[in-house]
Amino acid sequence: MAGDPLPSWNEGMAKSAILDFVARVTAAGGPDFVPPSQRIATFDNDGTLWCEQPLQVQFFFGRDRLKALADADPSLKERQPFKAYIERDMPTITKFGKKGLLEVGAFVHAGMTEDEFQAHALDWLATSRHPKLDRPFTELTYLPQVELLGYLRANGFKTFIVSGGGIDLIRAFAEERYGIPPEQVVGSSVKTRFEMQDRGEIIKLPELNSFDDREVKPANINLHIGRRPILAFGNSDGDLAMLRYTKTGAGPRLALLVHHDDAEREFAYDRAFKLSPLAEALDKADEYGITIVSMKRDWKTVFAN
Amino acid sequence: MAGDPLPSWNEGMAKSAILDFVARVTAAGGPDFVPPSQRIATFDNDGTLWCEQPLQVQFFFGRDRLKALADADPSLKERQPFKAYIERDMPTITKFGKKGLLEVGAFVHAGMTEDEFQAHALDWLATSRHPKLDRPFTELTYLPQVELLGYLRANGFKTFIVSGGGIDLIRAFAEERYGIPPEQVVGSSVKTRFEMQDRGEIIKLPELNSFDDREVKPANINLHIGRRPILAFGNSDGDLAMLRYTKTGAGPRLALLVHHDDAEREFAYDRAFKLSPLAEALDKADEYGITIVSMKRDWKTVFAN
Repeated sequence: MAGDPLPSWNEGMAKSAILDFVARVTAAGGPDFVPPSQRIATFDNDGTLWCEQPLQVQFFFGRDRLKALADADPSLKERQPFKAYIERDMPTITKFGKKGLLEVGAFVHAGMTEDEFQAHALDWLATSRHPKLDRPFTELTYLPQVELLGYLRANGFKTFIVSGGGIDLIRAFAEERYGIPPEQVVGSSVKTRFEMQDRGEIIKLPELNSFDDREVKPANINLHIGRRPILAFGNSDGDLAMLRYTKTGAGPRLALLVHHDDAEREFAYDRAFKLSPLAEALDKADEYGITIVSMKRDWKTVFAN
Repeated sequence: MAGDPLPSWNEGMAKSAILDFVARVTAAGGPDFVPPSQRIATFDNDGTLWCEQPLQVQFFFGRDRLKALADADPSLKERQPFKAYIERDMPTITKFGKKGLLEVGAFVHAGMTEDEFQAHALDWLATSRHPKLDRPFTELTYLPQVELLGYLRANGFKTFIVSGGGIDLIRAFAEERYGIPPEQVVGSSVKTRFEMQDRGEIIKLPELNSFDDREVKPANINLHIGRRPILAFGNSDGDLAMLRYTKTGAGPRLALLVHHDDAEREFAYDRAFKLSPLAEALDKADEYGITIVSMKRDWKTVFAN
């Protein structure tokens, strides 16, 4: 279709729902018009904007640093949860859960300044590759979603990430890959301390500040954004509170969910992925008014590279 | 001067420093050029963008609700710090400090949803008046600063508030008065909980989440914005860490401080105002490279209304 703003999306209910929603909220004088300042769209990251299989990128990032630390202090190799991470012992990793990924991240990066962390993250992203798909992690972003973000912004939306992943790792690549600047990234975070050294520095502490998952997502949207989104996009039960917070506001609302059902081009999974299951949100999508996006059916292309 | 972007500022060192800084960071190809995405400017609110005397607006806002609650539960009138607030007992209010203002605010608004709070704050702002200056609190904003915010945005800056005041009260008027949308307001905050009622609601809890003062300001800038500002503007020692964080980054930087020395048009105070003293920042302004803005000398007009 000439001038199609979403060329990587197949025609179908999901694409129509998006195009129809954007047309309605931008129609000046129409009954569903929403002023640009209120056109807030929030996207989960892992599994929604980029691949989260076989494990969230956060895992590989933290583990690589953990391995380096364990070379200097071999006792880490015998302590849990570090032992499980180094050995990729899936039952134990699953037992510690997604929050465990963040806690290991907090531990291995503690003491770094934010500037050091940014440099380290950029270096890691530039040099590491996904173990199965054999490409840089930053090439795991989904083309249909990158198109959708750009389409929303072209229609006056402000696009945000609201992720369970570590806020600083996402900020290291979100502007380049998604066009989303650091101040529009919300995520899990560690506590920090400001200190005057040669210059003022923000030091990362080994303790979680916020685990941005489930009911915490709407609370963090309120803290960071201060407005209820009119569009939200997720892929797991960790996003359900955000989707319902969005969908139950007054006026036109759109809540969307990626269903990973494409083993050929990406991965097929939902409720069995214990680190971030999609179960309740899938079972109750109709009742909650959530639009399911099937990767297999709705996306013409998957990856941006 | 024709086309003067800051007509409410008198000619002088402060105005020159601002105009020169903006010219340098926006000069494409120049040695001090800063790309628009990095043109982050942060402003304190109380005493920097609007009046904070005889007490921060937060005080009057919280006290009015406290009085209403105390009508229903008179025992509040005998409990500290509530007693001091109701009686305006300055020594005791000062003893509990600026953090005490936030804690009373957290107490009196606990249990409200964020939507209820916004409606309540808008109503209060529309109907309450400053006790000495006899005008609505929203007309306590400083015209030179409103001009400066607009001038910065016209030059590609993104303007943020980073305030010790309660984030939600500021969000209720910042877009209309300053052109700063909710997602660009950082402030003190209470803990909240998401709950599905008839619709998804954010409930305010009676506990502080963040007291956004002193060393916490740079930490919250890092959490909410994720970049070091290139320009920061404050008026008290509570802003000093933010000013130094800003000023000690690489490249061109500007840190500014309002000095309230104008008893005739506003108020004259600095180190004697115990709730928010200006002492170290004033004494060490030269050493730290902070530009002092004298209200009396540098502002042609004070209030925007």
